[in-house]
Amino acid sequence: MPVVNISLYAGRTAEQKAALALAVTKTISETAGIPDSATTIIFSDVEKTDWSIGGVMASEG
Amino acid sequence: MPVVNISLYAGRTAEQKAALALAVTKTISETAGIPDSATTIIFSDVEKTDWSIGGVMASEG
Amino acid sequence: MPVVNISLYAGRTAEQKAALALAVTKTISETAGIPDSATTIIFSDVEKTDWSIGGVMASEG
Amino acid sequence: MPVVNISLYAGRTAEQKAALALAVTKTISETAGIPDSATTIIFSDVEKTDWSIGGVMASEG
Amino acid sequence: MPVVNISLYAGRTAEQKAALALAVTKTISETAGIPDSATTIIFSDVEKTDWSIGGVMASEG
Amino acid sequence: MPVVNISLYAGRTAEQKAALALAVTKTISETAGIPDSATTIIFSDVEKTDWSIGGVMASEG
Repeated sequence: MPVVNISLYAGRTAEQKAALALAVTKTISETAGIPDSATTIIFSDVEKTDWSIGGVMASEG
Repeated sequence: MPVVNISLYAGRTAEQKAALALAVTKTISETAGIPDSATTIIFSDVEKTDWSIGGVMASEG
Repeated sequence: MPVVNISLYAGRTAEQKAALALAVTKTISETAGIPDSATTIIFSDVEKTDWSIGGVMASEG
Repeated sequence: MPVVNISLYAGRTAEQKAALALAVTKTISETAGIPDSATTIIFSDVEKTDWSIGGVMASEG
Repeated sequence: MPVVNISLYAGRTAEQKAALALAVTKTISETAGIPDSATTIIFSDVEKTDWSIGGVMASEG
Repeated sequence: MPVVNISLYAGRTAEQKAALALAVTKTISETAGIPDSATTIIFSDVEKTDWSIGGVMASEG
């Protein structure tokens, strides 16, 4: 606890996602008093052809 | 608001998903009075080897 | 197939969600050629105190 | 983009979740170079009677 | 790893969900060779007024 | 009903996932009295570079 799912556009490197996961875990720890070890984060890379905002695919925006 | 996740079998083209996203966004707008711009849709392509109904993979059905 | 999850602000009535589910199912059928019977939709009511956009809770917007 | 779902034990106050949402949004912005306005966060409160780790409900741990 | 989300109709007791969580965890362990301690299961109770199959709410079926 | 999402590390074969889906479906049936045909399972393969526990990517653990 907690389990965090982060859906974002594909294209981030493994290093960028590792840095983001660490930073989010630390932020949760500091803000909510939850130990680092309790936080699981799962990234979902989403292609812009799979993401629509306002009826327009992000690949067309 | 809203966020819509649509899991469906892999194989639709980007054009088909774009048409579906637009149509679903319009339907939500017309039915629920939510402006188009507020609707986010994320498609998840699922391989039939990852989808089971009644204990049988869709790839075997 | 497909499975559709729709997260939206709490407050819609059961009748409104029923109408929305039917309309979205029909739209998927007509746009993507998927029979009505294959579509599952699950609504998740989300309180505005549980939904943040740009770091601001929807309850404060 | 991104959409972040955070499932955590029920019991946090609206104020605590607001603070957490703001902090996570800022962290994503600073770490990944994503503007605050692009980040949506949805909290799911999960009762300990609905959360199992290693086959044991969190309510029994 | 793994994280399992189970959405089902509301109405199961805490005891029934505990039994189900334990049984699913054991099944994953025995079938996939994953230690019990690695499996997290989160139940989502869904009202029948929030679940549509084929355009018909489960509450009307 | 129910819909089960299983997120696990990528690398299982289609055969392994088929066996796991069947076993979990049977377990739900036997434990909760839900007919096999009502259970849908969707697997999400997650790369270890997309999965963080305690701020450390599974690929680095």
